Amino acid sequence: MRAELINPFLNATINVLRTMCQTVPTPGAPILKPSNQTWGAVTGIISMTSPTINGSLVISFQEKTIISIVNKMFAESNSEVTPEIVDAVGEITNMICGGAKQHLGELGHHITMASPVMIRGQGVVIVQHSKAPTIQIPIATPEGSFVIEANLA
Amino acid sequence: MRAELINPFLNATINVLRTMCQTVPTPGAPILKPSNQTWGAVTGIISMTSPTINGSLVISFQEKTIISIVNKMFAESNSEVTPEIVDAVGEITNMICGGAKQHLGELGHHITMASPVMIRGQGVVIVQHSKAPTIQIPIATPEGSFVIEANLA
Repeated sequence: MRAELINPFLNATINVLRTMCQTVPTPGAPILKPSNQTWGAVTGIISMTSPTINGSLVISFQEKTIISIVNKMFAESNSEVTPEIVDAVGEITNMICGGAKQHLGELGHHITMASPVMIRGQGVVIVQHSKAPTIQIPIATPEGSFVIEANLA
Repeated sequence: MRAELINPFLNATINVLRTMCQTVPTPGAPILKPSNQTWGAVTGIISMTSPTINGSLVISFQEKTIISIVNKMFAESNSEVTPEIVDAVGEITNMICGGAKQHLGELGHHITMASPVMIRGQGVVIVQHSKAPTIQIPIATPEGSFVIEANLA
């Protein structure tokens, strides 16, 4: 997968987290995803199609990370993952993909985004129906860690 | 969700299973999905978008059902769920959605299908980012049971 395809998602992730969640994300080095399991406790998946690229964006949060981020977003004091927090992961996934969509459009990739699907549980096996490798980028924030994963071909 | 939206998926499911898997599916009565957990051990999800409807199709197989169906399809003798069987669930999901797409087009709904994503494990919590109810239809075959679920709005 070319860097020009992953960068719009990375930039959108940083923008969304900075703007909506008032947190400062620090991306680590991209790796090939070493398994087909969910990395964190709450995971958002969004599928994308276009005449030029197809694939998915995954964003997967440690439990404490997403609780802290959502508490900060909405000035709440949740201590566990609620349905509203799972919904917020869907919204964050949507916003990141929406931001990336605009940049990808400028690169000539006019994607259609599906609605996100959220999955609970770490280590759940999720198999992409794609021969393309999945790139995983770890992201650190003061609230904890999460990853984004892109599978685009 | 209107019956005119669910029927194309049901008809396509029956056609695909009859044609590709040489089995005779008997649908039961549709119900509102009583939980947000995966029904079976191997589940395929496909997202769809169109100017008129958005949503997802889920197909979820009991372990013994999908092993028997794939063994029949490819004249194999698997006794457990292999990566090829998970891939076959993606293909079956794709084919059902492709069949439904054609009928939905005739009804004026010109959908774009994303690539399917497959999930392993029964009882995995999957949350649709949608206010629409999910309709679940149980389907019996000589090989065992499965369900299809449609969430379309």
